[in-house]
Amino acid sequence: MNYQHILEQVSQEASALAGEGNVASYIPELAKVPPERFGMALVTLDGQVFSTGDASERFSVQSISKVFLLALAIRQVGEKLFERVGKEPSGNPFNSLVQLEYEHGIPRNPFINAGALVMTDVLLEHLPDAKAAVLDFARLLSGSSEVDYDYAVAASERATGFTNIALANFLKAHGNLHHPVEQVVDAYFHHCSLSMSCLELARSFLFLANHGILPHPTSQPINQSTNQPANQSTNQPARLLSVSQTKRLNAVMLTCGFYDEAGEFAFRVGLPGKSGVGGGIAAIMPGHWAAAVWSPEINRFGNSVRGMKALELLTTLTGESIF
Amino acid sequence: MNYQHILEQVSQEASALAGEGNVASYIPELAKVPPERFGMALVTLDGQVFSTGDASERFSVQSISKVFLLALAIRQVGEKLFERVGKEPSGNPFNSLVQLEYEHGIPRNPFINAGALVMTDVLLEHLPDAKAAVLDFARLLSGSSEVDYDYAVAASERATGFTNIALANFLKAHGNLHHPVEQVVDAYFHHCSLSMSCLELARSFLFLANHGILPHPTSQPINQSTNQPANQSTNQPARLLSVSQTKRLNAVMLTCGFYDEAGEFAFRVGLPGKSGVGGGIAAIMPGHWAAAVWSPEINRFGNSVRGMKALELLTTLTGESIF
Amino acid sequence: MNYQHILEQVSQEASALAGEGNVASYIPELAKVPPERFGMALVTLDGQVFSTGDASERFSVQSISKVFLLALAIRQVGEKLFERVGKEPSGNPFNSLVQLEYEHGIPRNPFINAGALVMTDVLLEHLPDAKAAVLDFARLLSGSSEVDYDYAVAASERATGFTNIALANFLKAHGNLHHPVEQVVDAYFHHCSLSMSCLELARSFLFLANHGILPHPTSQPINQSTNQPANQSTNQPARLLSVSQTKRLNAVMLTCGFYDEAGEFAFRVGLPGKSGVGGGIAAIMPGHWAAAVWSPEINRFGNSVRGMKALELLTTLTGESIF
Amino acid sequence: MNYQHILEQVSQEASALAGEGNVASYIPELAKVPPERFGMALVTLDGQVFSTGDASERFSVQSISKVFLLALAIRQVGEKLFERVGKEPSGNPFNSLVQLEYEHGIPRNPFINAGALVMTDVLLEHLPDAKAAVLDFARLLSGSSEVDYDYAVAASERATGFTNIALANFLKAHGNLHHPVEQVVDAYFHHCSLSMSCLELARSFLFLANHGILPHPTSQPINQSTNQPANQSTNQPARLLSVSQTKRLNAVMLTCGFYDEAGEFAFRVGLPGKSGVGGGIAAIMPGHWAAAVWSPEINRFGNSVRGMKALELLTTLTGESIF
Repeated sequence: MNYQHILEQVSQEASALAGEGNVASYIPELAKVPPERFGMALVTLDGQVFSTGDASERFSVQSISKVFLLALAIRQVGEKLFERVGKEPSGNPFNSLVQLEYEHGIPRNPFINAGALVMTDVLLEHLPDAKAAVLDFARLLSGSSEVDYDYAVAASERATGFTNIALANFLKAHGNLHHPVEQVVDAYFHHCSLSMSCLELARSFLFLANHGILPHPTSQPINQSTNQPANQSTNQPARLLSVSQTKRLNAVMLTCGFYDEAGEFAFRVGLPGKSGVGGGIAAIMPGHWAAAVWSPEINRFGNSVRGMKALELLTTLTGESIF
Repeated sequence: MNYQHILEQVSQEASALAGEGNVASYIPELAKVPPERFGMALVTLDGQVFSTGDASERFSVQSISKVFLLALAIRQVGEKLFERVGKEPSGNPFNSLVQLEYEHGIPRNPFINAGALVMTDVLLEHLPDAKAAVLDFARLLSGSSEVDYDYAVAASERATGFTNIALANFLKAHGNLHHPVEQVVDAYFHHCSLSMSCLELARSFLFLANHGILPHPTSQPINQSTNQPANQSTNQPARLLSVSQTKRLNAVMLTCGFYDEAGEFAFRVGLPGKSGVGGGIAAIMPGHWAAAVWSPEINRFGNSVRGMKALELLTTLTGESIF
Repeated sequence: MNYQHILEQVSQEASALAGEGNVASYIPELAKVPPERFGMALVTLDGQVFSTGDASERFSVQSISKVFLLALAIRQVGEKLFERVGKEPSGNPFNSLVQLEYEHGIPRNPFINAGALVMTDVLLEHLPDAKAAVLDFARLLSGSSEVDYDYAVAASERATGFTNIALANFLKAHGNLHHPVEQVVDAYFHHCSLSMSCLELARSFLFLANHGILPHPTSQPINQSTNQPANQSTNQPARLLSVSQTKRLNAVMLTCGFYDEAGEFAFRVGLPGKSGVGGGIAAIMPGHWAAAVWSPEINRFGNSVRGMKALELLTTLTGESIF
Repeated sequence: MNYQHILEQVSQEASALAGEGNVASYIPELAKVPPERFGMALVTLDGQVFSTGDASERFSVQSISKVFLLALAIRQVGEKLFERVGKEPSGNPFNSLVQLEYEHGIPRNPFINAGALVMTDVLLEHLPDAKAAVLDFARLLSGSSEVDYDYAVAASERATGFTNIALANFLKAHGNLHHPVEQVVDAYFHHCSLSMSCLELARSFLFLANHGILPHPTSQPINQSTNQPANQSTNQPARLLSVSQTKRLNAVMLTCGFYDEAGEFAFRVGLPGKSGVGGGIAAIMPGHWAAAVWSPEINRFGNSVRGMKALELLTTLTGESIF
């Protein structure tokens, strides 16, 4: 498959949608991003790398970081995570506060904000420094030690993120947050501020296309408590999740990864993936590759307009999807 | 893969769950089914057939028939179907009347009852006899001319299905039903009463694992308006849906096929599928096989307890899933 | 108090709102009513009658008839009525189907459509002819034997009232309707079609301002099973409801009489009352008088714009309200 | 009317309900109150005072203080208050977070917690010290300078009131809170902790039965900005609210004063009133008297079981109600 050629064609066709959607404005820092940006990257399990446009430029991954949280939380507590958070699509146009109330403080799934707050609380329980752990994990997955939080974005959201603080207090009221609200939301806002490029994101998702094994050459067995390669001298690929755990995480991405457009994304694209309001989307073709796309203009559901179109074109042109 | 051996192992392990769940009782006719029944069948694209238990016994497929409706409706009107019905998971514990009201008469997806009523209305618009068309389609897919409606079940539901009649009237009030309520619900109740065995169901789903092409030897090109083989003399496999249409139908199954347990089924099983309150489930492994399982005891979400377990064991033991 | 002068002043001031609101159009027959109509009447317990404008012209009382249903149902079954229907304001902007579902088929109060359908079902159980009984009751209360159903309106609603038929089927599904859906909705649509003038309505509500006793000279003790004066020869005023029953019915009017504007009406007007989408409103000042107003232009909540204004002016100018 | 005799009869009959309901436990300080306590007081406009049981014992008035907030807020901003808070009954069994979300941060009425948070925010805007102002107002109304906040209760709620903090953050997210969340909830929790006896409460509500005029002998014209008697030398009764404002406040009590039992209270008691989870209820008979009752055992709606029964008996035995 000539992925490079396809990426370029996708980029060109998707550019017709420029101007549709709006850059996320609820966080002042995000509103500054130039709307016309577009980047896309695809990395294969056998180590090939393809990219187009602004694929090396870092942007705020926002909710895509929830996938890293979920992988870490499953590594720490396994299926017990799902005693505190559901795994069903939220599936209604009203936001998550309503469901949280109906369902007595159990977030509907790990990828709504309430679910990520609970996962953050879980990490705070099992890791010495939950903020550092997620950053280290992103660096390990991407193979890039330069990946970092955008502290201006984190501070910006900390000052204005009243809905998330409301959610955290509501979880606390229902006993589903064990740490102080302040501590949980501080870590959570940092996780969201993670800044990565399409190339870094695509590489980071590759283990999910590889049954849980980190495939790239620097991979090492990972120490469970430090989340770092256990032994610098070996060259064994590192298993991060079991086959079954990987299947389950991918299933959650497919059914819950796109807010109230999970059905739309599965329908049009047909791949497990996760989006963020920064305009990024990462997706995987199990057994083959991982891809990431970035275009800051998002639709009313919070998903990148050109990003969704680009991934739809990618699966149409390659004929590859999980269905 | 020794599927026969695996099916037998699955059957044995799943039997531990006998007694969990209850036989559907809201239709008197369904309540008569012996709860201990269990059958399972798997058919591969290359024509192999495996089965265990009561795999040849017919049961009421109920909502599994909605997959046939969706395939026929897509054949008739293509993507325009989705102007009248959504494609997002319903995803909340409250039933569909609520969402129908919030969303002004547009059913959330084709697999909730309201969505199937709209699809029935679409078929009534484009086919001379919608009741006969669905039956003929089920016979064509299963390769069995003996497949039939269970008229006692249809009559039973006709006399007691007040919630469905309420839904139809509500759709009518919102202008999303073009035919008389009586006509739509009569056809709908017959569709639900379709009686098939696991072997027939598995065979019927095979085209969805085959990119839309009916694979078995009797297959013929299908005439668009009669939904029958166009030409009795040729031996070409019949394309029922395009590759893209098939991907989309499978995506709808994955995100919406299990009422409020779509996430759970994707998580545990990892295959596109559809369940019915009669205790049946059909599922596919794209590019490989289709399977059906039947066990009448259902959980509070309406899904077969042993059926879900059996399919979970199947994907665990084979290591096969779409993720 | 110079009520005649006040009514004229009210009429003049309220006319400034002509053109605001719209004539109800969901029933074709109602849409034909000239929007500029305005009538108002006030009758006192000591027999005085005041009126202005089109106070003698009959119009479709629609939901105001629910007050007659409630009085009759309380007469038949007393407090037991409230085992099948609640008495809390519906109080949210979404219509009653939602609450009916959340609350398992128990209508929130007697004045939402679902509640009136249940009351109709109750009457069908206890009176030989529920359709005739409501009409006879309206004639008795108004002292006018010419009051009648508008059969064209009833037929019009019968042909297009799919939401009400949906409600009835949903109640039936929950076991809260004992008679066939057809029979209940037929009676219900007739009750709604009752055609009365402001003068007739005001007179009909007078017993509610009189602790349950029908005050006008033709009043007779009412036979419980026929709902007719028991003894043509006596001249005793007729008790229709006990003091306590009357208090309770008035309380239900105050908290539930104006759809999602019960709070607004209590706030601005401060009287128990009931509105209908035909543009009528009847209200009472306990111990003093009853009034009715009619102006067909209704707001988005279904309440007459000029009617509400007229009653607000009435209580402001007279200084009379229950608070 | 022999109110003293009636109060004693009421007290005796209501005692049959002892043991039904539970003392509010969500605030540790409230849980310590002895459940068997019962007090009741009635004060008339002409200065008579009647009481029984623990009518002089102070308890936590909790939500009854919202009536004081509403009176003060109306005094400060008049009808403009209702641009930031509605006046319709919340009327559904789900708590207020849901409606707040559906209605974009506008609390349904002033008597749900979210509404009181907005009123507190309004007071913070117009009064030098909102915490002191409410306390001073309660002292003025009750004629008792010993009325005070219970600082232990306020601190207890401050430490555990996560749902209210969630509500405040959610209001802030919707722009309907102008002051810092910390400042608003601190004042709010103090308002709720107000500690008063039945005698003090009854006296405090008397101006609402008197068309807005503070009737007791110590009354003075009230300075709008200090909320204190304007002129220590005059003996004129003080007008706190206009006739129309009083009518409106009373209407809000009737339609919204009892959480999801407003209809029930209007139905059984037939008076405007307000309850608190501390087990207190205050109610008025316009033109005649005000009463307060206290019994700490509350039902699942948060209303005092014996308190509601006592007021029902009071209106039944006196034959007095607004209907």
